[in-house]
Amino acid sequence: MQVFEYPERSQWPELLQRPVLDTTALETSVGNILAAVKQDGDTAVRRYAQQFDKVQLEALEVTPAEFAKATASLDAALKKAILQAKHNIEVFHKAQQEHTKVIETMPGVQCWRKPVAIEKVGLYIPGGSAPLFSTILMLGIPAMIAGCKEIVLCTPSNAAGEVHPAVLFAAQEVGVERVFKIGGVQAIGAMAYGTESVPRVHKIFGPGNQYVTCAKQLVNKSGVAIDMPAGPSEVAVLADETCVPAFVAADLLSQAEHGPDSQVLLVTTAPEIIAEVQQEVAAQLAQLPRQDIAARALENSRILLVKDTAEAMELLNAYAPEHLIVACKDDIAVADAVVNAGSVFLGNYSPESAGDYASGTNHTLPTNGYATAYSGVSLDSFVKKITFQRLTQEGLQQIGATIETMAAAEGLDAHKNAVTVRLKQKAQS
Amino acid sequence: MQVFEYPERSQWPELLQRPVLDTTALETSVGNILAAVKQDGDTAVRRYAQQFDKVQLEALEVTPAEFAKATASLDAALKKAILQAKHNIEVFHKAQQEHTKVIETMPGVQCWRKPVAIEKVGLYIPGGSAPLFSTILMLGIPAMIAGCKEIVLCTPSNAAGEVHPAVLFAAQEVGVERVFKIGGVQAIGAMAYGTESVPRVHKIFGPGNQYVTCAKQLVNKSGVAIDMPAGPSEVAVLADETCVPAFVAADLLSQAEHGPDSQVLLVTTAPEIIAEVQQEVAAQLAQLPRQDIAARALENSRILLVKDTAEAMELLNAYAPEHLIVACKDDIAVADAVVNAGSVFLGNYSPESAGDYASGTNHTLPTNGYATAYSGVSLDSFVKKITFQRLTQEGLQQIGATIETMAAAEGLDAHKNAVTVRLKQKAQS
Repeated sequence: MQVFEYPERSQWPELLQRPVLDTTALETSVGNILAAVKQDGDTAVRRYAQQFDKVQLEALEVTPAEFAKATASLDAALKKAILQAKHNIEVFHKAQQEHTKVIETMPGVQCWRKPVAIEKVGLYIPGGSAPLFSTILMLGIPAMIAGCKEIVLCTPSNAAGEVHPAVLFAAQEVGVERVFKIGGVQAIGAMAYGTESVPRVHKIFGPGNQYVTCAKQLVNKSGVAIDMPAGPSEVAVLADETCVPAFVAADLLSQAEHGPDSQVLLVTTAPEIIAEVQQEVAAQLAQLPRQDIAARALENSRILLVKDTAEAMELLNAYAPEHLIVACKDDIAVADAVVNAGSVFLGNYSPESAGDYASGTNHTLPTNGYATAYSGVSLDSFVKKITFQRLTQEGLQQIGATIETMAAAEGLDAHKNAVTVRLKQKAQS
Repeated sequence: MQVFEYPERSQWPELLQRPVLDTTALETSVGNILAAVKQDGDTAVRRYAQQFDKVQLEALEVTPAEFAKATASLDAALKKAILQAKHNIEVFHKAQQEHTKVIETMPGVQCWRKPVAIEKVGLYIPGGSAPLFSTILMLGIPAMIAGCKEIVLCTPSNAAGEVHPAVLFAAQEVGVERVFKIGGVQAIGAMAYGTESVPRVHKIFGPGNQYVTCAKQLVNKSGVAIDMPAGPSEVAVLADETCVPAFVAADLLSQAEHGPDSQVLLVTTAPEIIAEVQQEVAAQLAQLPRQDIAARALENSRILLVKDTAEAMELLNAYAPEHLIVACKDDIAVADAVVNAGSVFLGNYSPESAGDYASGTNHTLPTNGYATAYSGVSLDSFVKKITFQRLTQEGLQQIGATIETMAAAEGLDAHKNAVTVRLKQKAQS
């Protein structure tokens, strides 16, 4: 990790720069796959599974027997861990439920807002080296709490046509019954347009590689909602002299192992910890199975020494990290200064892993600086908040002149007249 | 308006079809303007103002003297109306404030979520035939309640370089201090990238024509958040025998006058009201200044007769209207069946105009079927909800094994190790 001591403010933009994400070059090929899925449905899905994943798919949907087999085969300790995480995620997301309050803005003018579940949602879970069952909890649990009626999950199978048992167990425990063995761009297309097997959904959630990201952007343009724009995962650690260098190093490495493009940043006010953290990083890195990936991510990673916590927070708010770990004295007070971040981890005993898996918060978070304007996934992501209003005849009399005056000034006479005809007419409840 | 009696369910998709919106053809020209604004800043903004709006702009920003002049010149009745509307919108949106609750998901594992204002937001207010000062209330008020630090407003001036006094008065009353006389694609570019005069923002709100819509889509793709995708405005009225045909007709016309592409739909269970509504539409239309526009919108509009309220609501949920007016007996009970709509108006005395201007609800709503997955603008649109967590050493001991087991099963050993190093180490802090 490169160290920069007391950088000038003018250097910040360069030091905080992220890799440029541009999927424009992929748009043609991804668009062709989407168009084929839209037109040929399951046939196209099977063709691309063969072409890209070298798998000959029979039934696309996971059967009850496959779910049962997964449950029977999965390690008991892992089941218990998944159920513990599920409990915590449920508790935290249930507390996000909003209760409808009727607001009388004027006598006889009642307005309220009601959260209503998005009826049909699609969850994408990537395949690849690891089964990301934790993401099923993070997306499926709020979808169930919201009351989404149709929850569809797509995830690629292995070459033998099997889905990892932890994925199926997590889906089953969350209550996601419809799991399809489809990956990549064709999965996004299947959920966006529907096929003979896969129901069309209104909103698509979940991580993916650059092809999946591009596919989500393209279907979003054509009217299907998506969770948020995506980019490589990232962590920033703010540490002072009260941090434990071994913990800081472990947190930096846990981000670095995600991929060679992961962003890792350490901001510190304490020059004396820098060498210690670097020694710990080297020592812990040597023990990691994914050390090649982590080492590549660390090559682009930075340690920034700044003069005080206030300057550190200014710099971190400019960066807008997905994850922010605050290993400082008075961490609760420092938290008050956070303006731009996805999720914040306070104190020496709150590793990012806690939120990634089991503490209860969501791990689907805005990357790439999107934390300036976007929130992570929450219960809100699975509902629409519909407003309602009911005016009594007296209420309309109270507010009528205001509406008529404003509508006339905007040159919208029919808007005005919708009030005028009502004010003129005798009561007819 | 064409009448369809008891259409088969198989006909619904055709009857509920909207005009296809495709701004792909505009992308090159809009993209070129955005690129020029990004590169040349104010110079490009002035050049396009000259080219498209035939206006020679001196200072881009509205001065305190111009605000004062607007306030002095504006009609007192309109000022009073704007202040009444502002009060109601404030009351309704303040009630959306979320208070932070700390949730202890397990002993020693505390998680919470805190709404934090988006620091910099941009509001776009179109020019054209009418000054849309009501939209300033709808966007500016929640931005101020959220606590956005920098609120920038762009709106085109007239050929003399003046902005309508109602627009300036509304901006001033809401607390929006920075108003720029910039319209169209160049305004979206200026707010997305920043220029010498206009600050760069993180999220852009507001309506616009197809060029503005396309510009918002393009800057969204490059990382600037936008309020929601846009389409022509629309209303659906559900009416039974208890409706007042003159009121229904007025509501249909108030939507039709927006533009020739406005979508107007009447769904009814009462065959006897159809002729009456049509007569009222004809009579009221004849009195409207914008009757040409409204008449063109009505040509594409439909009256659907269905067998009962349950079928009506099924059809309306499939349509997902921006505005839904329920002029039925038991309208509160019918409201419970609403799944997809932007905003709902209940009873005979709740015209859409009430919500467009003054009742308190927001009028920036999802069109084009987006109500299946999107909400209208609310206080939520101006904040990010950031999650925080703080684990005690004991809390991490409680949850540690769960995290370790899950991380190991996902093949992420550094994630596991971030817990392990902490469980091993003696308490520090």
